[in-house]
Amino acid sequence: MRRFVIGSARNLIESSRQKYQFERSILSSPYRFLSSSPAADSPSSSSSSSSTMAHPVSLNTINPKVIECEYAVRGEIVTLAQKLQEEIQTKPDAHPFEEILYCNIGNPQSLGQQPITFFREVLALCDHPAILDKSETQGLFSADSIERAWQILDQIPGRATGAYSHSQGIKGLRDTIAAGIEARDGFPADPNDIFLTDGASPAVHMMMQLLIRSEKDGILCPIPQYPLYSASIALHGGTLVPYYLDEATGWGLEVSELKKQLETSRSKGITVRALVVINPGNPTGQVLAEENQKAIVEFCKQEGLVLLADEVYQENVYVPEKKFHSFKKVSRSMGYGEKDIALVSFQSVSKGYYGECGKRGGYMEVTGFGADVREQIYKVASVNLCSNISGQILASLVMSPPKVGDESYESYSAERDGILSSLARRAKTLEDAFSKLEGVTCNKAEGAMYLFPRIDLPEKAIKAAEAAKKAPDAYYCQRLLAATGIVFVPGSGFGQVPGTWHFRCTILPQEEKIPAIVTRLTDFHKSFMDEFRG
Amino acid sequence: MRRFVIGSARNLIESSRQKYQFERSILSSPYRFLSSSPAADSPSSSSSSSSTMAHPVSLNTINPKVIECEYAVRGEIVTLAQKLQEEIQTKPDAHPFEEILYCNIGNPQSLGQQPITFFREVLALCDHPAILDKSETQGLFSADSIERAWQILDQIPGRATGAYSHSQGIKGLRDTIAAGIEARDGFPADPNDIFLTDGASPAVHMMMQLLIRSEKDGILCPIPQYPLYSASIALHGGTLVPYYLDEATGWGLEVSELKKQLETSRSKGITVRALVVINPGNPTGQVLAEENQKAIVEFCKQEGLVLLADEVYQENVYVPEKKFHSFKKVSRSMGYGEKDIALVSFQSVSKGYYGECGKRGGYMEVTGFGADVREQIYKVASVNLCSNISGQILASLVMSPPKVGDESYESYSAERDGILSSLARRAKTLEDAFSKLEGVTCNKAEGAMYLFPRIDLPEKAIKAAEAAKKAPDAYYCQRLLAATGIVFVPGSGFGQVPGTWHFRCTILPQEEKIPAIVTRLTDFHKSFMDEFRG
Repeated sequence: MRRFVIGSARNLIESSRQKYQFERSILSSPYRFLSSSPAADSPSSSSSSSSTMAHPVSLNTINPKVIECEYAVRGEIVTLAQKLQEEIQTKPDAHPFEEILYCNIGNPQSLGQQPITFFREVLALCDHPAILDKSETQGLFSADSIERAWQILDQIPGRATGAYSHSQGIKGLRDTIAAGIEARDGFPADPNDIFLTDGASPAVHMMMQLLIRSEKDGILCPIPQYPLYSASIALHGGTLVPYYLDEATGWGLEVSELKKQLETSRSKGITVRALVVINPGNPTGQVLAEENQKAIVEFCKQEGLVLLADEVYQENVYVPEKKFHSFKKVSRSMGYGEKDIALVSFQSVSKGYYGECGKRGGYMEVTGFGADVREQIYKVASVNLCSNISGQILASLVMSPPKVGDESYESYSAERDGILSSLARRAKTLEDAFSKLEGVTCNKAEGAMYLFPRIDLPEKAIKAAEAAKKAPDAYYCQRLLAATGIVFVPGSGFGQVPGTWHFRCTILPQEEKIPAIVTRLTDFHKSFMDEFRG
Repeated sequence: MRRFVIGSARNLIESSRQKYQFERSILSSPYRFLSSSPAADSPSSSSSSSSTMAHPVSLNTINPKVIECEYAVRGEIVTLAQKLQEEIQTKPDAHPFEEILYCNIGNPQSLGQQPITFFREVLALCDHPAILDKSETQGLFSADSIERAWQILDQIPGRATGAYSHSQGIKGLRDTIAAGIEARDGFPADPNDIFLTDGASPAVHMMMQLLIRSEKDGILCPIPQYPLYSASIALHGGTLVPYYLDEATGWGLEVSELKKQLETSRSKGITVRALVVINPGNPTGQVLAEENQKAIVEFCKQEGLVLLADEVYQENVYVPEKKFHSFKKVSRSMGYGEKDIALVSFQSVSKGYYGECGKRGGYMEVTGFGADVREQIYKVASVNLCSNISGQILASLVMSPPKVGDESYESYSAERDGILSSLARRAKTLEDAFSKLEGVTCNKAEGAMYLFPRIDLPEKAIKAAEAAKKAPDAYYCQRLLAATGIVFVPGSGFGQVPGTWHFRCTILPQEEKIPAIVTRLTDFHKSFMDEFRG
């Protein structure tokens, strides 16, 4: 199995598989522990070379890139949580808690966040346009949602919401999105640059598929990173080139670190194709300063790297001193246009105040690529025909919500502000709680939906984890889950400086549940430290 | 650029690129003609080795598998059609026809097919559950759609239709689908075998990703085939091993041909992993007989091949003498279970009488894989989190439509039967029309949505095509489009016996437009043959 990890993460490569499983931090998740070696009782794991075997597929004969790929936020800890939840359902007193508190994934509506009414009204009307001119409809739906639904239907050829659309998405919706980007940035956006996708993940896969030719192609990714990136790079057979965010400066992104890692990887024969920047950060929650972004743009331009800007948390900024600036706006404000920098911005309907994860809507804005390469991206998009139309419609809505004067504006803005201000309060409460724990430090969540506290684990705890064949942070998270029902994701799923340990906690549980989480966590942590303090 | 094509298609591999472009039949589409060589005016096509270039991405530096991949049904001919359509919009008398007649793609609602009312009612209610208990709702929606929406919401944790679901799809919906499969087949189905996906295409990609390790892994595919398969195999770097359907016997699938191609490819060092069967056939429209299916199952079992059964047209059978049998039912009826054969069945909401292409719903039923490999499939699904919830709901609805006694049953069955009987009439009318054309023979469309007539082109037409650097069938289709506005896809996009020429025509244009299509086609064909008869 290939594994290329460059630069200061090099020490993660171990010849001993067991040690490797234990210590590796980049790309690691509990998944491999569950499943990467052929199960002894599998009828298909023996003799895979015979052509007449009944089970032609075993772990020995599937694509090793699939085995390589890992995705921690739905990994072992979540499987365990689901098992505990089933046990509680059957036997309510099976565990010392009455419910599982999922803090593992940015999935707001699963934790009770309500959808924005206006968005759902429009979606329902577009799903069943036959009711649009019925009188009862006016009693059930706002006037502007009815008007918007008509507008959207008129943008769809034949008003056919059940037809495959253009493979980049419905042109009228791309016009709306481009106008929304222009209004946000103050610079032009071209609807032909927009590719609507089933959430941001398929868009990221498309770009990785385009850029990665072999394991000699590298993608610069932040560490810690959102594991979609490591998973996608693994699936496409490329090399993740890590650059470390500086925890001491609030997860700062230093261009000197980018340069160092770029040079190291080049010296090893890796062709670095692109730089991934997640802003606001996942799992780290920082919001980049504009000056920092300018330096990043300059770096990409100078080094000929595609800038892959994950901007799905653009509406999630919680501190007055920070503001979201798109990389497109920053690069255009520097005077850089199409010919200067290749830039892809990813947006999703799953995050923001809308949190419509289940709708699988999103887009990428692709700029600075030649027409010939753009045609190749279009071709790959066309193989899957198009993204789902409801997701496309929703992507247009989040980029053009109700405006002052629209019937829905007041309720819409109240819903939006209620969600965002509550998220800010929850972030602060959890941050304060983490900071009070022995051996734990926690940077501020300036944005996004996560905290990524660092935990100094006692030597005895690390030994206990080793005995249990777990990474120390995974061990901590599993003990926490078993004791409290709280689900965090171990930092090893995102990558971290070797020898440091973290976990990711979303700020999404309902506000009234936060005090209970704090209490349970605090009690657990104290007893855990008492047990292992040595 | 790698290209492995085995067996009787070997003669397609040409050292001369121009000849190759002209003659190759497998995997070919007009795409490469448009875009596979670097455009001379592209700023990025020169000097891709410099690390400080402004445009880091050119056709020389992207993944060659992307360039390799082709998808004819949205290829050059469709791009041309869209251009003509725009010209007509600006200048209605720009061309000798007033509209483009799209017969290129199985996209029924784009051509005026109306959605099934019950399905859309349920989707709208699930999109905006807040209206479910309002009194006006009962005036707008059927009682059983309201009841079904409640049932579905109760299956979703927290009734959160905006949350990411389980990565295989919502468990309750999978229960419904499994029950639908059981009712269809008379054999048990396990909801844990169901993976809900954004249409069938991503499911096919997942299986190709799982099975293909390198170009030494082969996938047996019918020729002609639906170009998703060739595209997906190319993107995943595998080898398409063709087996030819026998046009003379109504596109018969002969196990002797499968054996021959398997042996030929094995002798060349290719490990054949799987057999793709499309039933009912796309683009060929045949419906397999049960005895034939049994022989195919036996072949896969004996040879240790995964059977990838594309069954998305299972509701589209138009002749009384044929009936759809799922491969799962056939294999279970032979006494073969989990341990005997690895079988994946693909289903979609895009086809059938529902034709809900834009909703991107579908599932695959995965049986006969070990738990360890299943876990890997789940992991890959989890990287994209989940498929869209509306598509998931719709997939459950098409597998459990209204039943006798339900309020909607009569209108539902009238809508369904109206669509299916009209499709059968259209298929027959078009088949008869094709059969009357000079030099054209056309097998019956027993099922699916397509006719794939064969055309004997005069030598002079073939020479004219060569001069225009087009495949002869592409040349015919472009001339047809320019003269009539009718869009067919050249057979070379699907593959055909070398030296034979075909085109694919959907049976989907509205019934009242079929006579005009027949007249225009007949007139064009006569003048084309007059021009080239020689």
